[in-house]
Amino acid sequence: MFQVVRSSSIPLGDQLVEKVTGLIQTGRLPEGSRLPSVRQLAQRAGVSTYTVTQAFERLSAKGLVQSRPGSGYFVARLRRVPVPARVELEASASFYSVLGFASGFLEQDKVIVPVGSGFLPAAWLQEAIPPSILSKLGRSGAAFESAKVKGDAGLRELLAERLRTASIPAAASDLIVTSGASHAFDLIVRALLSPGDAVLVNDPSFFVLHAQLRSHNLRLIPVPMLADGSDLEALENAAKLHRPRMFFTQSLLQNPTGSSSSAANCHEVLKIADRYDFLVTEDHMLSDLAGAGAITLAQIDELRRVIYVGSFTKLLGPGLRIGYIAAQSSLIAPIFKAKVLNLLSGSALCESVVREVLASGKYRRHIVHLRDRVAKARAVSAFQLRQVGLSIESTSSEGMFLWARIPPGMDPDRLVVAAQAQGILLAKGSLFSPTAQCQDYFRLNVAYAADPLLVSFLSEQFSAAA
Amino acid sequence: MFQVVRSSSIPLGDQLVEKVTGLIQTGRLPEGSRLPSVRQLAQRAGVSTYTVTQAFERLSAKGLVQSRPGSGYFVARLRRVPVPARVELEASASFYSVLGFASGFLEQDKVIVPVGSGFLPAAWLQEAIPPSILSKLGRSGAAFESAKVKGDAGLRELLAERLRTASIPAAASDLIVTSGASHAFDLIVRALLSPGDAVLVNDPSFFVLHAQLRSHNLRLIPVPMLADGSDLEALENAAKLHRPRMFFTQSLLQNPTGSSSSAANCHEVLKIADRYDFLVTEDHMLSDLAGAGAITLAQIDELRRVIYVGSFTKLLGPGLRIGYIAAQSSLIAPIFKAKVLNLLSGSALCESVVREVLASGKYRRHIVHLRDRVAKARAVSAFQLRQVGLSIESTSSEGMFLWARIPPGMDPDRLVVAAQAQGILLAKGSLFSPTAQCQDYFRLNVAYAADPLLVSFLSEQFSAAA
Repeated sequence: MFQVVRSSSIPLGDQLVEKVTGLIQTGRLPEGSRLPSVRQLAQRAGVSTYTVTQAFERLSAKGLVQSRPGSGYFVARLRRVPVPARVELEASASFYSVLGFASGFLEQDKVIVPVGSGFLPAAWLQEAIPPSILSKLGRSGAAFESAKVKGDAGLRELLAERLRTASIPAAASDLIVTSGASHAFDLIVRALLSPGDAVLVNDPSFFVLHAQLRSHNLRLIPVPMLADGSDLEALENAAKLHRPRMFFTQSLLQNPTGSSSSAANCHEVLKIADRYDFLVTEDHMLSDLAGAGAITLAQIDELRRVIYVGSFTKLLGPGLRIGYIAAQSSLIAPIFKAKVLNLLSGSALCESVVREVLASGKYRRHIVHLRDRVAKARAVSAFQLRQVGLSIESTSSEGMFLWARIPPGMDPDRLVVAAQAQGILLAKGSLFSPTAQCQDYFRLNVAYAADPLLVSFLSEQFSAAA
Repeated sequence: MFQVVRSSSIPLGDQLVEKVTGLIQTGRLPEGSRLPSVRQLAQRAGVSTYTVTQAFERLSAKGLVQSRPGSGYFVARLRRVPVPARVELEASASFYSVLGFASGFLEQDKVIVPVGSGFLPAAWLQEAIPPSILSKLGRSGAAFESAKVKGDAGLRELLAERLRTASIPAAASDLIVTSGASHAFDLIVRALLSPGDAVLVNDPSFFVLHAQLRSHNLRLIPVPMLADGSDLEALENAAKLHRPRMFFTQSLLQNPTGSSSSAANCHEVLKIADRYDFLVTEDHMLSDLAGAGAITLAQIDELRRVIYVGSFTKLLGPGLRIGYIAAQSSLIAPIFKAKVLNLLSGSALCESVVREVLASGKYRRHIVHLRDRVAKARAVSAFQLRQVGLSIESTSSEGMFLWARIPPGMDPDRLVVAAQAQGILLAKGSLFSPTAQCQDYFRLNVAYAADPLLVSFLSEQFSAAA
């Protein structure tokens, strides 16, 4: 019954574990029955007592046997492990491709050229948070203070001041600090929308947002991006037809297209929002990379129906996860509640870091340098990539993303796989499209887009295809 | 039309703002119409041009007037501000009493004796995170790394090791780091439960959890706490009647009663969970304050149907907001997804702080000291409070909460109000009861429960009533 095969390439311990598992699962060793002692089993199986002890330990860890000190090992009662029904329900392919990219990217260690990444290199950010800021916060005990629900009061004052400088009439009391921009979107959805509501999103736009909206059972209505902003005719038709509750958009340096909306486009978007009475959530994650003078929805609307979402994840510290929401009080109240119910409050330590960086003027100086560095990298990489055959429509000189089209006839999926084999992570355009368009496009991070490995890889691929 | 009353105690500027607001709101100054110039208005109202300029600025900030550079001030187009329907829907009194306590407490600055607080004083925690840890992380650039979705790999290894030491067979890959325990509960609910599901909660238990469960439209079924754990008869009846999907409980140093479940009680709870096939979420937020040898559901069940929730908020660093979930893989997968959709990932900086504190052995030493300090404070405060007339049923010598009953006939609400007037924050027992029981009970934090201000306050109140 317990005999193992000494000549097998399978280790004796493994054989024993497998054997006993089989005996238990087929009921030949019933629940509660006593197993032979270690010594007996070692003799009967012809193995050492050490092997048997190890096997019993592993069977215990698997929950198949239980040791009762003093009386030996027994077959455990087999407990049916409940697996919730919703796991199956939501395992839709489209979600997992998005999740797969997100987690694949965030978990991935062996990427050499992360040109599909949404993050800038740590070296580009380091000047903004000198170690002395953390030492100071270590001494002042920021790790031991529990944060306010809305976020650090000093930080909110500084944020409100920054917004007012940009002609956005925000009050510190109508600001809520979040764990990054995606967290802000989730709280806004939970606070202000209901399952079945129609919401407008740009096509293309940030894919994690689409997954978030779908998970709340909202109906996503796409609004194409044109060179000067949202397609106004499509926006009006969608508003008329679907009566949406909210439009998620990004007027400055849109992710992934990199384009900024014109002032005229912003005005028209708000007129349509007024006419069809929907709210607008405007993503300002990358706005600080745009030069002064850019016009946004939040500025024109003055936070009446626009909800402002800012973040320090991309341009200051990805490891801090600090974002924020500014909106009129009647919208902030339910968002406050959603934050309490989600996680009570954020990290006082991380909030203090951002407060210190803002208060010291370091953020302002850092952004001036970063804007310059990003613009230079953008110019260099756009030039090189056009040389090898990518088509880059945007003529903007700002922002961290290039939206590039591969030559006609190329297979984008094969390109992704070939790139991966060389340690190059590419972000396919279709990932950003709620309607799975943009098949021939890729979003490229300018910090990595002039990498010689990428440039030579694309050059080879494109000339082989030509 | 613009005349102000010079003799009034209301400042002239305020009068002017109010007057113009009234004229706009009643339509006497129609949308788009031009306001008198600053100079004209100053003359007509008989005030200085400075007062008029300030008033116009305030009217602009309120969105009532708009300045067009070069042509003066105009009445703004009044935009209807959409207020979402859900705000009204969920404004139930019970929720707001909970939210009011949570936010009132977390936002409150003028509390002198926060004996109703769930937090220990910062001074009791400080030894665990010396400033050198933050300096080190500042130099290594933890603020610039984006965290993995599951959380820092090194931290998860250390957490899994700690769990295995407590006989809980956890794998680092089946751990997810969260922003505190409340965040863990929210992710578990979002991942594994559906609206309308019945869930079991102890009566009393942590009130924020109740608000979280209600906000997801779950049916809360109360299971009374007895001296040795959950009321087993009530648990079995509730399971039979309501077919719950999950039981939220806390076997060690339960919040608020401070009591720990007996090993026998834990065994019976798991038998019932097996029989009626529901999952168990076990809160281990305070478990490290219990001496070795304590038995919990997670240990007996070995994470088959028990989901383990741990946290470093209470006993290490409230400002870090680091908690974690350990569960079997099939449950961790949907929780992972819920975390991505909620906020992508946590703070690499805060995760690194906890990793360093655990790896250096500082947490272990800190907990030994803290346990001792809490136990001493508990003994002293229990003695003093019994002297003044509070009845404290729990005989446990561990844990940070005393569950105390006021003398018969006292009005608990009046006690709360009287305490507040003296800067004493009390946490009423009924706050913790999903059925609004426990009217005569209070939860007292042992760190503040021997404060002379509290002791003399209670002594006066009780002797006045007697």
